[in-house]
Amino acid sequence: MDTPEPRLVHTRAVTIEWGDCDPAGIVFYPRFFAMFDASTAALFQAALGMPKIAWAKHFGVLGIPMVDTRARFHVPSAYGDEVTIESRVTAFRRSSFDVVHRLLKQDGTLGVEGFETRVWTARDAETGRIRSAPIPAEVIAAFA
Amino acid sequence: MDTPEPRLVHTRAVTIEWGDCDPAGIVFYPRFFAMFDASTAALFQAALGMPKIAWAKHFGVLGIPMVDTRARFHVPSAYGDEVTIESRVTAFRRSSFDVVHRLLKQDGTLGVEGFETRVWTARDAETGRIRSAPIPAEVIAAFA
Amino acid sequence: MDTPEPRLVHTRAVTIEWGDCDPAGIVFYPRFFAMFDASTAALFQAALGMPKIAWAKHFGVLGIPMVDTRARFHVPSAYGDEVTIESRVTAFRRSSFDVVHRLLKQDGTLGVEGFETRVWTARDAETGRIRSAPIPAEVIAAFA
Amino acid sequence: MDTPEPRLVHTRAVTIEWGDCDPAGIVFYPRFFAMFDASTAALFQAALGMPKIAWAKHFGVLGIPMVDTRARFHVPSAYGDEVTIESRVTAFRRSSFDVVHRLLKQDGTLGVEGFETRVWTARDAETGRIRSAPIPAEVIAAFA
Repeated sequence: MDTPEPRLVHTRAVTIEWGDCDPAGIVFYPRFFAMFDASTAALFQAALGMPKIAWAKHFGVLGIPMVDTRARFHVPSAYGDEVTIESRVTAFRRSSFDVVHRLLKQDGTLGVEGFETRVWTARDAETGRIRSAPIPAEVIAAFA
Repeated sequence: MDTPEPRLVHTRAVTIEWGDCDPAGIVFYPRFFAMFDASTAALFQAALGMPKIAWAKHFGVLGIPMVDTRARFHVPSAYGDEVTIESRVTAFRRSSFDVVHRLLKQDGTLGVEGFETRVWTARDAETGRIRSAPIPAEVIAAFA
Repeated sequence: MDTPEPRLVHTRAVTIEWGDCDPAGIVFYPRFFAMFDASTAALFQAALGMPKIAWAKHFGVLGIPMVDTRARFHVPSAYGDEVTIESRVTAFRRSSFDVVHRLLKQDGTLGVEGFETRVWTARDAETGRIRSAPIPAEVIAAFA
Repeated sequence: MDTPEPRLVHTRAVTIEWGDCDPAGIVFYPRFFAMFDASTAALFQAALGMPKIAWAKHFGVLGIPMVDTRARFHVPSAYGDEVTIESRVTAFRRSSFDVVHRLLKQDGTLGVEGFETRVWTARDAETGRIRSAPIPAEVIAAFA
């Protein structure tokens, strides 16, 4: 297959805030999905060299909506924790792709794994309807 | 002055969810502002007889953005509490208005007071810029 | 097998608020996980006849933390939508169980599916450590 | 008066994420309160040289709960904006204090002002009840 393998890994630091945590003193898990969403945005910004608003316009797309996401929670994070989120695309298909996130605690322990399947989405020039579109080779190459 | 006094009070029940609360076991206060925003939407829907998307279109406005808001926290609410939020407009001016919310605990104790100043906002037909617009008498009458 | 099949389905209505939605005008997907968490709490309250704080104390558990969750997004929901969430336990194991949520749009269309695996968790009487515990037959029976 | 004037200003950078924004494409205003809460935590950490969990233990307090907060919204922020939040204590009283936040847009424009009144809170050694406590001179000095 000619598609270059995505190798880019983007890492960002996140501080767990008081408002991220629940009465058990640990992160309320829906907050991890918000963190992962921001991590995917940061990954694409790093790969494509511009923020989402700019690359969406550049490639004529509306966005990369989520169709399927999952998370596995291994070790909880608490208020004040300084964690790291490593994110990478694991597969590009015709018009969809997968992202994996690994949230690591300060000592390197794997805290949470996140899995996403998103769709490259554009407005059909003729019908005006929102639909999936082929991911440009230029985009795939930027993650290689 | 001819402006009828706003008398409508809208009341809605809210259950405090686990994800609304912080490690102290009480509502993380920014969540109260989100509850109050939903209460203002419910108040306008009750007064105008249609949801916001419909009345915004009907009156040709973009929305009622917040310019100033405040809350006073008297008694905390915790997970599982069934509270009531009473909301009313306290003053209509030319293009801005005030909303007051009272969050009452199950025993009637005042938990939180919320105060909002919002602006009736439209797009200028000539310049296309977003600006404040006079609140229609029909709207003010609906709260009387 | 002697374990009674869980048959209880709990349904609750949810209004999509302005603050649940993102710049695309649709629900920011992490919010669905918060809605599903509240639905699981409501399901257990319906089955056990008391709120979580009460049944956690009654059964001597700390809670039912999430270890794995997934959602599939079929049709977006937007501000003002009145949706319904149907929730049920699909499997009880020794100390873990699965919950499935179906978010239905006003016309009955399936909007989102949610899947959860949670663990029945207690504090070990001897070591004081938090660990999984066998789900009491009384709990399983309450869902039959 | 002998109390030293608080002069410490803490500044932190915040990226506006997709999930912070509403269907109008701008930050959903309750999110600003969450940002300000994290800024107050960062301010105290900078002043006292240790994270909140540590200084709360060191000074024998439970926390600094909010009793009154307000925000004025001048210029909206949108997805992708890189903003700066400047935070400082403006007044220390016996057991309460005021914090002011200024959220500045990338060009230096004042976007939002935030105002907080919080209480230094401890558990009464005799009754076990939560109550306000005198702010230690050591804390006040750390902000001078």
